[in-house]
This record gives sequence, structure tokens and C-alpha cells, in this order.
Amino acid sequence: MTYIEELGKKARFASRSLIRLGQNEKNNALLKVAESLIENAEEIIKANDIDMDNAKKCGMSEALQDRLKLNKDRFLAMAEGIRQVVALEDPIGEVISMKKRPNGLMIGQKRVPFGVIGIIYESRPNVTVDAFALTFKTGNAVILRGGSDCINSNMALVKVIRESLKASGINEDAIALIEDTDRALVKEFMQLKQYVDVLIPRGGAGLIKNVVENATIPVIETGTGNCHIYVDKYADIDKAVKIIKNAKLQRLGVCNACESLVIHKDIADEALPRIVDMLSQNECEVRGDERAYDICPSYIKPAVDEDFGTEYLAKIISAKIVDSFDEAVEHINTYSTGHSEAIITEDYESSQRFLDEIDSACVYVNASTRFTDGFMFGFGAEIGISTQKLHARGPMGLLALTTTKYVIYGNGQIRE
Amino acid sequence: MTYIEELGKKARFASRSLIRLGQNEKNNALLKVAESLIENAEEIIKANDIDMDNAKKCGMSEALQDRLKLNKDRFLAMAEGIRQVVALEDPIGEVISMKKRPNGLMIGQKRVPFGVIGIIYESRPNVTVDAFALTFKTGNAVILRGGSDCINSNMALVKVIRESLKASGINEDAIALIEDTDRALVKEFMQLKQYVDVLIPRGGAGLIKNVVENATIPVIETGTGNCHIYVDKYADIDKAVKIIKNAKLQRLGVCNACESLVIHKDIADEALPRIVDMLSQNECEVRGDERAYDICPSYIKPAVDEDFGTEYLAKIISAKIVDSFDEAVEHINTYSTGHSEAIITEDYESSQRFLDEIDSACVYVNASTRFTDGFMFGFGAEIGISTQKLHARGPMGLLALTTTKYVIYGNGQIRE
Repeated sequence: MTYIEELGKKARFASRSLIRLGQNEKNNALLKVAESLIENAEEIIKANDIDMDNAKKCGMSEALQDRLKLNKDRFLAMAEGIRQVVALEDPIGEVISMKKRPNGLMIGQKRVPFGVIGIIYESRPNVTVDAFALTFKTGNAVILRGGSDCINSNMALVKVIRESLKASGINEDAIALIEDTDRALVKEFMQLKQYVDVLIPRGGAGLIKNVVENATIPVIETGTGNCHIYVDKYADIDKAVKIIKNAKLQRLGVCNACESLVIHKDIADEALPRIVDMLSQNECEVRGDERAYDICPSYIKPAVDEDFGTEYLAKIISAKIVDSFDEAVEHINTYSTGHSEAIITEDYESSQRFLDEIDSACVYVNASTRFTDGFMFGFGAEIGISTQKLHARGPMGLLALTTTKYVIYGNGQIRE
Repeated sequence: MTYIEELGKKARFASRSLIRLGQNEKNNALLKVAESLIENAEEIIKANDIDMDNAKKCGMSEALQDRLKLNKDRFLAMAEGIRQVVALEDPIGEVISMKKRPNGLMIGQKRVPFGVIGIIYESRPNVTVDAFALTFKTGNAVILRGGSDCINSNMALVKVIRESLKASGINEDAIALIEDTDRALVKEFMQLKQYVDVLIPRGGAGLIKNVVENATIPVIETGTGNCHIYVDKYADIDKAVKIIKNAKLQRLGVCNACESLVIHKDIADEALPRIVDMLSQNECEVRGDERAYDICPSYIKPAVDEDFGTEYLAKIISAKIVDSFDEAVEHINTYSTGHSEAIITEDYESSQRFLDEIDSACVYVNASTRFTDGFMFGFGAEIGISTQKLHARGPMGLLALTTTKYVIYGNGQIRE
């Protein structure tokens, strides 16, 4: 049995015992983990120091170093994150429906844990704690494969969590970390179908592509966002300017930021200069198609086709003028990544058609795409934002970490 | 653009228009397709004759030839199948939840079509019609890749369906068949992520394994069933005999048939001889572990470990004696395929623990596993039985062919 298989087998075994835990047991164990992390912060920070030293030696950017760094404040934040998960309602055990069939069979559908969840992610060590809290709360065992950049931090974190679980009388294999950062093991992990029920990659486009292409375990794809805002012929231009400012500029490096504008030709002459004015005041570059360029030639740069498919995550936005509502929908459905798109309109029919015809996880009328987020949606937590259509679509809270089973109560029924 | 890409692009384009169809339009088009199939039965049967001739030449078994054969009765059955789908409630457009957030945003979750569904399947041509009816009813375009054995039948069927759709004013690319049976194209199809949203393989274990290993499109795995019946210490033996007879023998070649018995040691001396008696009267071979063999050495044959993991689909069943409830659960969770398992017991705690701890799509108390079926569950249709935990688990009806999107109604909200 290989190292990875052994991790899988132990996680599967642990998952069987997690099913039997009540909500109180799970919550108490989570609260103890929060305490243990605070108590052992110094030891974990020492391990983090090694990662930070390596990062400096490798010339990691300041921004990435900041994500990697653990300090007392971040421990308080991690512990607070766990307490917030404790406060959430436990979805496990809910019977969503129960119906009596003509032959007397009672057939119910019940929410249950997946069993074992695999998470493959990059840098930030707080994801380690976060992912554990969410998967444990939903009765799942988790196998983590974090970035090699923070392997020492992750090992220290997982050690403390495991010890805390053990002290609570819970099988510590409820969490495991792949400690060997050999890349060949990642591929083996992605194909560990016998022991892992679902795989969630969290990170950049390259990581996600690698998982989708190599995994045989079912994957929940969390994705990139090339989000559009369509300024309809019947838009309130004040609203448009305000919403575009927020969606593009409130935070740049996030998947729900707006990356592309689509503007109806009948409103473009009036709306585009005002939008461009706001963007230029905020030093945001605009790359437009020919017609957009013709309206604001002094500021807009010519776009190439590639621009319309690009998630900039920077102070750049693309802009396209369309002749009709239909062309807007066609353009967006062609270039979007299916994450979040918004229409700005005061027209009833345009709003309804946009909601119906745009093929994305979240479709907005007159609001910023920045709201696509588990916390903003009221889930109290977020494991990622799914851009696939299977199982979960859009922001994923605790429910996305559960599956269902049919429970059937009979009294001797046989099939005729 | 390759042949497969072109099919994908056309299907994607057609799927956009299907979203706009109301229930009545979809149902009327389906009823016309049912009529067209009857009207064109002769022509299609001619194409089927070519497949039948080829089948005979290749020495296809009588049983498989029977599955392949189309005749007038089967056309009536196919048309009746479509009419039954027409009668089902359309899940598309239902808003499952709609909540107002503190900032005034209304966030709703709405059931929508996937878009384009790919189905890869083996022989029976009626699956072609069936799959079309279910995917069309749920507003999806479908690309079919059927077995090369019935390529002529499928081409004739799909031609009639497309002509009928066109006559109803609907984009006929709502259904496409991959007419080139070159195997290399199947792999290309399984990776056509840009145009296909979900892939459903229907067929034997080899087909499903091939799809799971090679697809980059999300897959719904429909699976094999190594179904267990556990005769608990507190079982009513009459019920056990009756249910095992039904689950093993009512139909042999189906995934919800019982393939393995697990019997508590305290009841084995009394229960096993009665069960074996019934099985022997029905000429069903029993392969038992040592302890089972010792109880009925004149009939039971010794099992090897492999027997417990085998889906026989034949008049053979394995039998294992266990020391405890826990051992039964552990054995079943180890060898089952996660399809359907039943406990026979009159004990409250055993029944509840079995429902909780067995990790399968359908878990029964005192009933035959043969009920795992979309029709028996009251769905009115079945696209397959999912043995994975992502998206759909257990029998899949129309709902399994839908996804959701978030629709968000704002009036200028931005994120602070």
C-alpha cells in the first residue's frame, strides 16, 4: 500500500465514525481546535518562519509573502473563523422529503456527508484551518494537499488540529495532510477513487486545469471569473457608473470583479464618456472595440479579440458596443466564464430576458457582481465559488459539502 | 473546426433557444415526435434490418439481438414512453428559494437546464428516443454517441426526430448523433468542455470506467450494483426468505438485484438453511464463507474473497456469516458498490444504525433492493441510477438533468 493509499484508507475509516457524531460533539471538538490553535500559536509561527525564510530566498513577491505570513492577529482570525462555522446550522441528517408510495414503502431523501473530501490548494495557510472547519462540521474527513511554499506551516497546523481531535476522543484521521510535496503524488491522489468521494481544487487557472484533466474522482471546479456588466439601452446611467466603479475597482484581484463592459449602441454616446471619465479618474485602463474607441479616442485603447476573454485582475477593463440586446447576450455567453454577469436597465423585458438567457452561475439586475460570495449570500461560510453546473453552482456553503442518500422503510415489500 | 467541435457548437447554439421554450411548446413538439416515429416506423425498421444483418454476421448472441431489434410493438412502446414524459411536471423555471438580504438584494435560486448533455451508451436503440425525450423536456440539447452495433437504427431515429423538431419550428440541433463510429472521436467528445456541460455514460462497467478516466467534462457515473441483504440477529426469517427470493431472482441481469447475503451468526443456524432451501429450489448457486459452508455443506460451495466483490447478474449469490452488526456494516461498506443494500430486522436500533452507517445511494429496511428504480420511486422516468455522490445519487429522474442559477434583483446595490 502506497503512502497516498494509506492516507486514503485511514480517512475513509475515520469518516465512518464521523457519521455517528452529533452536532454538539462536532461543535465542541471544533471549539477545542480553535483554543488549541491559539495555545500553540508560537510553535506554529516558528514553522511558518521556516516557510517565510524559504520564500524570501526564492524571491517570492511581497504580496505573496504577506499571504503566507502567520502572526498573532491571523491566529485570532482563524479561531474566530472556526467559531463562526460552529454557529452555523448543521445540514447533516435533514430529511428533505419523505413520501409514502402506493405499496406502503416510505421513501425519504436524507442529507449526509460525502465521506472523504480532497482539497488541493495553493499558498495561504489559513485555508488549511478553514477547509478543516467546514468539512468537519459537515461530518466529512478531509485530505489536504497544500502548496509546497507553506508545507511547514501546514504540517504544524494539522499536527495541532489532530492532537486536539484526539484529546476530544475523535479519530484524528478526520484530517490528513499530504506531507510529501512530490508532484507525482498529486496525480496519484487525484485518482484515489476508492477512498476519496470528491475533489475540490482551490487556486489559479493552472491548478484547476491540472485537476480537471487528471482526476478520476469527481471534481467541483471553482473558477475564474471573466464577469460582464451590460449597460442596456434603457439603463439608468448614474446607476451604471456607480455599479461599474464598485464592480471593477472595489477590489481588483477577485474572481467576482467586473472585467468587461458591454454597452448598447443607443446609449453608448451618452453613457460611455461618463463611464470612461470615472474609470480614468481611477487610473483604470479601458480597451475598447472600434466603436468604443471612436467615442472616446483620447482615453480608450484598441482592444484585440483576446481582451474580451481575459480576466485581468488589474486596473484594466474591456469595452464592447453592441447593436442589440441579442448581440449582448451572445457576446457575454461566448466570452464569459459562467461566473457572474449583470445588466443595468430600467426595462422590464430586458431584465427578465437577461436573467433567463445569460448562462452564468449568478445573474444580476442593477447590482454589482462583487456580491457573488458565500458570506454576502448569507451562507455564513464559503468553500469556493463553483463555475461548473454539476452539484453546486455559484457560491458554495456547507450544503455543497453534503450529498444525499435514500432511506427506505418497508415492512416486507417485494417487487411484483 | 473538427466534426465533433461542430456538433458541439451547433448543440450549444440550439440550447440557447431551448431555454426560451415554454412547457407547452416543448410538450407539443414531443407529441409530434411520437407521431412522427410511428409514421416513419417502416423506414426506421429498414435501417434496423441492416444492423440486425450485421449482428447476425458478427455472431451476436440471441439475447443481444433481441435488445437491438425494432418492430411495430417497440415503436408503440417508444411513442408511449414519450407521452409519459410529456405528462411529467416540467422542473425548469421553478424558483427553489428567494430571500431578501439586509441590503435589499433579492437572491433567488432557479432551476434551469444544463445546456448541452452528452450521453454515451451501448446497444438498445430505444435509449436514443428515451434520452431525447428526457433531455428535451428539461430544455437541454443532447449529443448522443450510441453503440456502433445500432448505428443505422440510431441514424434513422435521429433523422426522424430532427425533421419533426424542424416542422415544429424548433432548432433541430437540439438532438445530434455522432454518426462516425471511429473510437478516437469518443475521446475527443469526452473532452469537449467548451460545448458540453455534463456527460452521462450508460452501459457496462468497461464503458463507464473509460468515460471516468478520459473525460474532462463533469460525469454522472451510473453504475453497477453489488447489492447486499443483511439478515440481522433480530430478523423475521419469513420476511428474509421472501425478500431475498425477490431481490435475487425476480430479474437477474439488473443492477438492483441482490448479489450477496450477510447473516448474523446468532440467527445463521436457523435462517441460512431456510434461505438455502429456497435458493436451491430456484437453482441458484450459493458461494459461502467457511462458516456458511459448515452450516449447509451439501449445497453451499466455498467462496473465494473475489466472490464478495462480484456483481454476478446470474443465478449465483455469495453468503457471509458475521459476528456482529459492526462487522456486517464494515463488510458491506467494503464490498458494496454503493448502490442498494437492505437489512432484515425487527429491532429498532439495528434498523436506524443500518440506515445511518451504510454508505450507499439507497438503504432499505425490510424491503427488496429491486425497488431502486426511478419509476418505483415515483419519478415517472429514469435516466439511470447514479452511484456517485456528486449532484445526483440513486435513481435519476428529470431533476437530475437540471442545474440551478442564482438570479439577483437589485436596485443599485454596491458592495461596501
